[in-house]
Amino acid sequence: MSEIDSELELALNFLDINQEQSIKRLFDILRIPSISTQEKHKKDCLKAAHWFVEQLSEIGFESSIRETNGHPMVVAHFETEGPHFLFYGHYDVQPVDPIDLWDNDPFNPTIEEINKVKVIKARGASDDKGQVMTFIEACRSHIKTSGTLPCKISILLEGEEEIGSPSMSAFLKENSKELSADYCLVCDTGMWDKKTPCITTMLRGMVGDEVKITAANRDLHSGMYGGVATNPIHILSRILSLLHDENGRVTLNGFYNDVPELSKKQKEQWDSLNFDVSQFLGDVGLSNVIGETNYSPLEKIWSQPTCEVNGIWGGYIEPGFKTVLPSEASAKVSFRLVGNQDPDKILKSFREHVKKYLPNDCKVEFRAKAGSGASSLPVDSVEIKAAEKALNDEWGINPKMVGCGGSIPIGDHFKNILGANSLLVGFGLDDDKIHSPNEKYNLSSYQKGARSWARIIYNLSKI
Amino acid sequence: MSEIDSELELALNFLDINQEQSIKRLFDILRIPSISTQEKHKKDCLKAAHWFVEQLSEIGFESSIRETNGHPMVVAHFETEGPHFLFYGHYDVQPVDPIDLWDNDPFNPTIEEINKVKVIKARGASDDKGQVMTFIEACRSHIKTSGTLPCKISILLEGEEEIGSPSMSAFLKENSKELSADYCLVCDTGMWDKKTPCITTMLRGMVGDEVKITAANRDLHSGMYGGVATNPIHILSRILSLLHDENGRVTLNGFYNDVPELSKKQKEQWDSLNFDVSQFLGDVGLSNVIGETNYSPLEKIWSQPTCEVNGIWGGYIEPGFKTVLPSEASAKVSFRLVGNQDPDKILKSFREHVKKYLPNDCKVEFRAKAGSGASSLPVDSVEIKAAEKALNDEWGINPKMVGCGGSIPIGDHFKNILGANSLLVGFGLDDDKIHSPNEKYNLSSYQKGARSWARIIYNLSKI
Repeated sequence: MSEIDSELELALNFLDINQEQSIKRLFDILRIPSISTQEKHKKDCLKAAHWFVEQLSEIGFESSIRETNGHPMVVAHFETEGPHFLFYGHYDVQPVDPIDLWDNDPFNPTIEEINKVKVIKARGASDDKGQVMTFIEACRSHIKTSGTLPCKISILLEGEEEIGSPSMSAFLKENSKELSADYCLVCDTGMWDKKTPCITTMLRGMVGDEVKITAANRDLHSGMYGGVATNPIHILSRILSLLHDENGRVTLNGFYNDVPELSKKQKEQWDSLNFDVSQFLGDVGLSNVIGETNYSPLEKIWSQPTCEVNGIWGGYIEPGFKTVLPSEASAKVSFRLVGNQDPDKILKSFREHVKKYLPNDCKVEFRAKAGSGASSLPVDSVEIKAAEKALNDEWGINPKMVGCGGSIPIGDHFKNILGANSLLVGFGLDDDKIHSPNEKYNLSSYQKGARSWARIIYNLSKI
Repeated sequence: MSEIDSELELALNFLDINQEQSIKRLFDILRIPSISTQEKHKKDCLKAAHWFVEQLSEIGFESSIRETNGHPMVVAHFETEGPHFLFYGHYDVQPVDPIDLWDNDPFNPTIEEINKVKVIKARGASDDKGQVMTFIEACRSHIKTSGTLPCKISILLEGEEEIGSPSMSAFLKENSKELSADYCLVCDTGMWDKKTPCITTMLRGMVGDEVKITAANRDLHSGMYGGVATNPIHILSRILSLLHDENGRVTLNGFYNDVPELSKKQKEQWDSLNFDVSQFLGDVGLSNVIGETNYSPLEKIWSQPTCEVNGIWGGYIEPGFKTVLPSEASAKVSFRLVGNQDPDKILKSFREHVKKYLPNDCKVEFRAKAGSGASSLPVDSVEIKAAEKALNDEWGINPKMVGCGGSIPIGDHFKNILGANSLLVGFGLDDDKIHSPNEKYNLSSYQKGARSWARIIYNLSKI
């Protein structure tokens, strides 16, 4: 074993020996209910940001809270020799409703054994606090064993990822000099399966809109007005039902204009992954693959755009009956974008669709959710090769190169504002129930995730 | 003035002299939040029932609370000579949401002046506590001035009208001997306009259903599953949007089978009412008359069936965004029925419609709301003629004979179970905002309503 390799061995050993304290630290941050979309949790978001500043300061990073118009950023730098990497993660989490479906308090983390596998259960265990901590623990292991990191590392944690990162773009522009790095590292993605890591090279973008349709100026009695007065729930249902044609294709004008054909090579590589869609859907109690039949399930998730209604409400929704003809009906709709689809153009086309089917005595109001385009990363860079090797060393199997149906706008921002590509590696699993009740992160994801990052930053320092 | 006419004059004078105390009594009952559909108000419903028992006992009725499987009935009898009339009303009220839109506490009644007209503002002021009190105050006026009523009167008040009267049918069957009367009197309808009373001779029936569609067995991440997994909001929107065709006609199989053609005579009488639909809709901020063009607006409201979605909900409906692909989506749907439409058949047809468009990997659950058929009353009976004369005497104008888009299942029950027809007279106005925020009852409706009933029961005793 060379001197340098022994440096890595020391770090990996440190992670194994100190696992208990590492879990304790993760539990501390999981206890803070930093739900960014809910005003009542604003202070908890700030508290989570401070917690990370303290953690990073303790192991030698120069760390600070940085104000934005929304929840603050955490920025930390560790100065040393070598190339410069910028790590990104987020400390905010999704809401917990429906709370009744949680087995435990979502902010009281526990370790449980499910099918002989130990998991950490809590909101944010996987998305994204657990994943962020794999990187910070990896840094800790190098610093505590070698006194320094193998390369210069900056860390940027945001508190608005779950609400579409509204402050990120301006923040990066204002601080581009400070944050510019050779390459970015992002830990907000998943494994291919329990045994196989992967590197995500293609991400969908996203844009969302909330639409409220108002008919009468007050709730009406359905006996007095039913049959002559417009019911906004009927209008909204119609508008939403017309968003897809009978083949599941989105009907918005120009929606597919900037959606590229998938290359034959890419299609072949994805087909070779032998994705088991029956199992994928079967795990959540479904059996039908919806949508167009001329795309494989993986192509649909990774390279086709979508339109989903994420929420709908109107009229009387409490227990019992109220024969009301309501004044208002609302929905939250979001679009996953691919290729060169432009969030603003898609939003505009959606609003035109709504207005097209809106009766002239009804009103409509919109409230957009900040959007971002899709991104695609070069798979043959030295950075990705270095990470590939590190992951192979840790997991004993070559990582898969995959797409991702989700949206991590940061890759897009880093490319456009900082001019840097991103390495997307994460240790989440399909059954982590992120955004759902009983979110979990496998203990092996946490431990081997930290070991993987210790290897990756070590390998990256050598390129 | 004959001796007998002077009896009526004494009663009418009593009502005028004692108006203040009469309003005070109405305020007492309006303060009790007897919302029948909400479990948390169960005790308030019982309290309201007790309040009426005490009121009626005080003026000489033999009164009692009568248990049912739901909220109790109030039954009261006043024994004397002459024909026997059964008065019906309800002491339960609608929920108050959206509570933000009320100017005052809905259960703290006030008298306000709106456009120089004095109104009583509270939930239930019009529907139906104010209306019930017009009758009880009329009884009080006769009893306090003549020592008795001009005819035998029984009173039946229920506490489940706003939830579809689930206990009424069984209760009437069990107590048919006690409650059988020559004719029934119902005060739950409205005036033609501020100056013109009316007698309702046609009522729509109603049946309702709650539908819950479940797709995945848990909420999913729309990035991971969007594009391949079924979104139950999409399914529900489609099912609801297909309930009406492009002409506004309900598409359910067999829906119009038992809907009769309106007689030429009836159509002409209604046309002669010169109903101003522009004003009717304009008052609530709308301008378009929806639905089929081959029926007049009054025909649509009074003699055509409807299908309305009264509530819809699913996914994330709190402030902010959550890119969830939800597990469930639900709606409350109700149907106004006419002619011989059978509630059970309509419910069955609705459920077949839902199942027809349900993907085979989704589940559906239904929860019916008790239904009742439509009713139509003979307009040339001596009872209706006696009431017509009484209303003309009070208001100085002949009452209109009208239909009603709402559903008062009791008329149907009285006919089928007790074998008695019903006289439907009420003093509500179109702008009373029943079932909506800021419900009110004009002070003139209350005062002249009581005077009208004093006259009606006097006239009925002479037939």
